[in-house]
Amino acid sequence: MSVEARRDQLIEIGLRAFTEQPYHEVSIDAIAREAGISRGLLFHYFSTKHQFYVAVIRRASRELLAYTFADVSGKPIERLHAGLRAYFRFIDERSLVYSGLMRGGVGVDPEVQELLEATRCIIRDRIVAELGELPATEAAMLRTTVRGWIGLVEAIGFEWLEHRDVSHEHLVAIAVRALQALVPDARMLWE
Amino acid sequence: MSVEARRDQLIEIGLRAFTEQPYHEVSIDAIAREAGISRGLLFHYFSTKHQFYVAVIRRASRELLAYTFADVSGKPIERLHAGLRAYFRFIDERSLVYSGLMRGGVGVDPEVQELLEATRCIIRDRIVAELGELPATEAAMLRTTVRGWIGLVEAIGFEWLEHRDVSHEHLVAIAVRALQALVPDARMLWE
Repeated sequence: MSVEARRDQLIEIGLRAFTEQPYHEVSIDAIAREAGISRGLLFHYFSTKHQFYVAVIRRASRELLAYTFADVSGKPIERLHAGLRAYFRFIDERSLVYSGLMRGGVGVDPEVQELLEATRCIIRDRIVAELGELPATEAAMLRTTVRGWIGLVEAIGFEWLEHRDVSHEHLVAIAVRALQALVPDARMLWE
Repeated sequence: MSVEARRDQLIEIGLRAFTEQPYHEVSIDAIAREAGISRGLLFHYFSTKHQFYVAVIRRASRELLAYTFADVSGKPIERLHAGLRAYFRFIDERSLVYSGLMRGGVGVDPEVQELLEATRCIIRDRIVAELGELPATEAAMLRTTVRGWIGLVEAIGFEWLEHRDVSHEHLVAIAVRALQALVPDARMLWE
């Protein structure tokens, strides 16, 4: 197996492991065993359990981006709905990974936080681009507004993971209503 | 000095230290020196630097609550504006503490995250109470919505700390507009 293919395989197994178990319960030995390699060889690819975790979170971030921006057909408002639905489905499926990241803990350090913040910035910039030229909107205000909106989407997702007492459709409705109010000029473009 | 008074004094000094320096630069020796006690005695009150940090963050959280809910006069909409202004002023004054918490790092572990989450829940519940009885609003939806709004306020605050390219009044405007859109029935109560 090539170095790249092996790394990929290990990250795949790791993503499933961190999805099913909290950080401290994930066993590097079990992952090496599943890949059919020795523990020593795994540490050849990732120097520590933490570095392995960082690689898994990087993969999960890419997956999240691909997932939430998958739908490129339809009207912008439909794409927004589809993206939000995909986002809430994603954090549902990866709830252990997600709440581990949100709650902090052994796995969360500045490197992971930077990775998350970089992902938020990519989402922010894509949405800003999607909203298009807006009359009388300063770039800094728009960027701040959209960053705030992403904070709202994350927070309702986290609240939902803790309580699971509203539907995904309700979460989508909260997020859409907030964005429409915050960027009212773009609203006309959508409907 | 009584045990309580000494603890208080140390936490005061610590809050100033963590406001002026990032976590890893804060010197326990310097804090003990400033309080006029030995390093050993400081560790009698707080068993580790991290435990000391937790106590400081607990104090900062209480300060934040007192600060943002200080204004109890005036119409609700005026109190909302005052509270938001106080919040953004607070994170400005305590920017190193705040961005340390947001970015994660050595000081941030599950205990600190729980403390932050508990503070968010207190703010959420106070705002829910402030909004009052709303027709046709389910409690779970309202709680989720307000939690989302707090996420938005935090995120625009963090974006502002990173860029400082919009005014505090702009941040207040974004937050108020979002809350009015998200809880439209309460809007009438305010204006």
